[in-house]
Amino acid sequence: MSEPITFYFDFTSPYSYLASERIDELAAKHGRKVKWRPVMLGAAFKASGMPLLVTIPLKGEYSKRDFDRSARYMGIPYTFPPKFPVSSLSAARGYYWLHGQDCERARRFAHAVFRAYWTAGRDISELAVVLELAREQGIDAGAFETAIGSQEIKDRVKSETDAAIAQGMFGAPYFMVDGEPFWGADRLPQIDKWLQTGGF
Amino acid sequence: MSEPITFYFDFTSPYSYLASERIDELAAKHGRKVKWRPVMLGAAFKASGMPLLVTIPLKGEYSKRDFDRSARYMGIPYTFPPKFPVSSLSAARGYYWLHGQDCERARRFAHAVFRAYWTAGRDISELAVVLELAREQGIDAGAFETAIGSQEIKDRVKSETDAAIAQGMFGAPYFMVDGEPFWGADRLPQIDKWLQTGGF
Repeated sequence: MSEPITFYFDFTSPYSYLASERIDELAAKHGRKVKWRPVMLGAAFKASGMPLLVTIPLKGEYSKRDFDRSARYMGIPYTFPPKFPVSSLSAARGYYWLHGQDCERARRFAHAVFRAYWTAGRDISELAVVLELAREQGIDAGAFETAIGSQEIKDRVKSETDAAIAQGMFGAPYFMVDGEPFWGADRLPQIDKWLQTGGF
Repeated sequence: MSEPITFYFDFTSPYSYLASERIDELAAKHGRKVKWRPVMLGAAFKASGMPLLVTIPLKGEYSKRDFDRSARYMGIPYTFPPKFPVSSLSAARGYYWLHGQDCERARRFAHAVFRAYWTAGRDISELAVVLELAREQGIDAGAFETAIGSQEIKDRVKSETDAAIAQGMFGAPYFMVDGEPFWGADRLPQIDKWLQTGGF
């Protein structure tokens, strides 16, 4: 099997959520796996000097309309959350702790976090909400809370974010496919063609 | 026939060029016409406070790769020009003068300008180059030169740019389809679905 695709995302990025609902299926079609890597998008915005999309005059207003329309276009349930943006740090830390034990369980937790925020408007910046999501997945919330306070897990989020920026990430979702970077849920069709043709 | 689509573009915008090669055919499929409206993208960047894409750290480097890959994906000849960005003011003025006489001739001139810059690297900021392109289209270069110096034509470029910004334009290509704004060559598939379904 060929190299896995790396999928860099932030749980609070709407286009990351849309991509999260499609990337595994797309990759599987071409016999590929996907490495999910939550990162802190704020650090990437700092690296590129860019403001938060929704705060940009004209572009910000358009973007909210485009989030919504793109979700409908892709057939994905979506509601802009009442609180935006929020910190996704606890969720990202929890993901890496779970990932160290069981990739599949970490993947299910990631889907749960995305959907809680982007369809139910739950505030994933609140530790209590993240722990509740963990419990809903049958995860030991006490162990989860202890783990995400560890230096190792804190460092992991930072090192993954640094690695993403080192590979050119300035926004999310950001994919690395055999060394080729793709940015945006709207690049999934290009990734599909890339995997099918071996690059074009 | 339903209302025409408005296509706002700048001759020096790579994604505008890519869209220009596809939008008429897409619209025709749904029985629509397209109003082509060259504008000064610099004014829109000013309105949204955004820097020129290629100058943004990380994002700028990615974007050049994405221009090229998107052109290959869409099957459109493309070469990043040796001089970028350049002013497209003379070409835009010439377009509106031609448009006042013959829409089809203006359309052919617009294609010629786009292709001269994006496939042959000709410097369309040079009046001599724009006049040469006009001559190649069988247009009276003397009349062209006189016309683009007129206040009426100068005002037209400004008023079209203002109209685009009033409709939310912050980048190009920017399309208005029955009141719905779409930004980017990568939104052509959404426009296609929008026209097919009457909005989704």
